[in-house]
Amino acid sequence: MGFLRSFSLFCLISVAFAHEAFDSHLLPRPLILEFPEGVVNQVKELDEEIKLRCDSWRFNVEANNLNPWKTIPKNCSEYVKQYVTGRAYQLELEIASNEAEIFAKTVKLVGDGKDVWIFDIDETLLSNLPYYTDHGYGSESFKPDEFDNWVEKATAPPLQPSLELYKELLDLGFKLVLLTGRSEKQRESTTRNLINAGFYDWDRLVLRRDDDQGKSAILYKSEKRSEMENEGLRIIGNSGDQWSDLLGTSVSVRSFKLPNPMYYIS
Amino acid sequence: MGFLRSFSLFCLISVAFAHEAFDSHLLPRPLILEFPEGVVNQVKELDEEIKLRCDSWRFNVEANNLNPWKTIPKNCSEYVKQYVTGRAYQLELEIASNEAEIFAKTVKLVGDGKDVWIFDIDETLLSNLPYYTDHGYGSESFKPDEFDNWVEKATAPPLQPSLELYKELLDLGFKLVLLTGRSEKQRESTTRNLINAGFYDWDRLVLRRDDDQGKSAILYKSEKRSEMENEGLRIIGNSGDQWSDLLGTSVSVRSFKLPNPMYYIS
Repeated sequence: MGFLRSFSLFCLISVAFAHEAFDSHLLPRPLILEFPEGVVNQVKELDEEIKLRCDSWRFNVEANNLNPWKTIPKNCSEYVKQYVTGRAYQLELEIASNEAEIFAKTVKLVGDGKDVWIFDIDETLLSNLPYYTDHGYGSESFKPDEFDNWVEKATAPPLQPSLELYKELLDLGFKLVLLTGRSEKQRESTTRNLINAGFYDWDRLVLRRDDDQGKSAILYKSEKRSEMENEGLRIIGNSGDQWSDLLGTSVSVRSFKLPNPMYYIS
Repeated sequence: MGFLRSFSLFCLISVAFAHEAFDSHLLPRPLILEFPEGVVNQVKELDEEIKLRCDSWRFNVEANNLNPWKTIPKNCSEYVKQYVTGRAYQLELEIASNEAEIFAKTVKLVGDGKDVWIFDIDETLLSNLPYYTDHGYGSESFKPDEFDNWVEKATAPPLQPSLELYKELLDLGFKLVLLTGRSEKQRESTTRNLINAGFYDWDRLVLRRDDDQGKSAILYKSEKRSEMENEGLRIIGNSGDQWSDLLGTSVSVRSFKLPNPMYYIS
C-alpha cells in the first residue's frame, strides 16, 4: 500500500514534469499529495484504537463485569451504532439462538405441558432498533414517555433468529412464557406488536402489575419464575438480552444471553 | 485505493513500454500485476469474514452461551492466537480488573478478617500462555501429562492486571483465597510459581484433594465456597476465567469473568 502510494506519487511527479526541467521550487505542489495520506493513516489508527477499546468494553459488558453500567463510553457511540446495524450483531444473535435450539433438542420433555421456555421481549423477541436509531443508539439518556409512545405504535420488528428459535421451540412442545418489564398498561399494544411481528401461541404474557413497579428487574423476574415453579412448571430455558432476565433465583436449566450494548437494566 | 492501484498499473505499463511501440501481445505481462490484487482482496475479505465469525463465537463464549464448548472452531485457531498474544486480551483483562477494583473500593469491610476475595489461578493469576504457545493456543486436545510437566517448572508469568488487583485488594484489607482446580500434589510447584510471579500473603491456597478428583469444577468450587461460608467468611468478590469459577452455590457478591477463548472447564 505504502509502495503503491509512493509509486503513484512518483508517477504523478513524472507525468506532471515530463516535459519540464526538474526544478526544486515546484516540489511543494506534488508533495501536498502526501499530506492526506498521513492524515488518513492517523484517522485509521485512531479508529482502530477506538474499535479495540470499544470491543474490549463490549466483551466486558457481555461477560457482566460492568454490572451496572449506565452509559455507553462517549467514544463508543459510533462503534455501537455500527455494531447494532451491522452483521456482527446478527451473527451473534444467530449463534446464541442456534445454540439454544441445539440445547432444546437434547431435552427430553415430560410432555405434560409443564416444560417451559421463557423469553424476554425487548431486544430479545422484538427489536427496538428503529426507536434507538432516532435516540443515539443508547447514547442518549432514556426518555420513558417517548419510549412509551414507540411501544404504542406496536411496529417493532422481530429479531429473526429469536423468531426462528421461538417457532422451533413451539414445534418441540415447549410452553412459551413471555416475561417482560413492560407494564400491564401496555398489554394490548405489546400483544398487537408481537402478533404483527409473527409471534403466536404463547402460553402467557407476564407484565409488571402495579405492585411490581419499583422492583428491580432481577427481583421482579425471579419472583415471577418462582411463582411458575410453585405451579409445578419446569423452567428449562430462558432467553434474554439482560443479565437481569437470567440471573437471580428460580433460574432456568440453561440460559442464553443475547447481545445488547445499548442499555443495561438492573 | 482502486484508483491508486489502477494508476500504478497504468504507470507501470507506461514505464515498461515507454520506448516500445504499443503491442497487444505484450499486454499479458503487465496484466499479471492485477492478479495478485484480486487474490489479495479475496484473502482480505475472507480474513474479515473469519474475524467477524470468530468474534461472534468469542462473544458467545464469554456470555456463557456455548456452555460447554469442547474445541475452538477450526477456522478460529489463528484468530485465537492473535487475540491472546495481542492487545485486545490485555485491554479486556485491564477493564475487568479495573472494574473489580472500583467495586472493591465501594465495599465497607467489617474488618474482622472475614471479608474474602477469591481468585482462581490458571489464566486468572498465572498465565499459561508460554505453554499454550507450544500447544496450538488451545486448538490441540489437552495433554494432562505435558501440562503437569509445565506446572512443575513453576515459570508461568503473572497476568499483570490481576497482580495489580491482587495487591490493591491486600492493601484494602481483603483476605485472599486462591481456589484452583490444580491437585494437592502440585501445591509446592504452585506456591513456588505464585511467589516467583510476585504474589504473596494469601490467606489460603485451596487445591483438589483426592476426594475432590472427578467432581466437576463448578461442584468442587461451590463446595469449597460453602465450607468458607460455614466458617463465617463473607465472599465479597471472585475473579476467574471460567464460568465454573463463578457460578454454582455460595457465590460471591460480585464476580469478574476474565476472558479465555482457549479452553472451557465445566
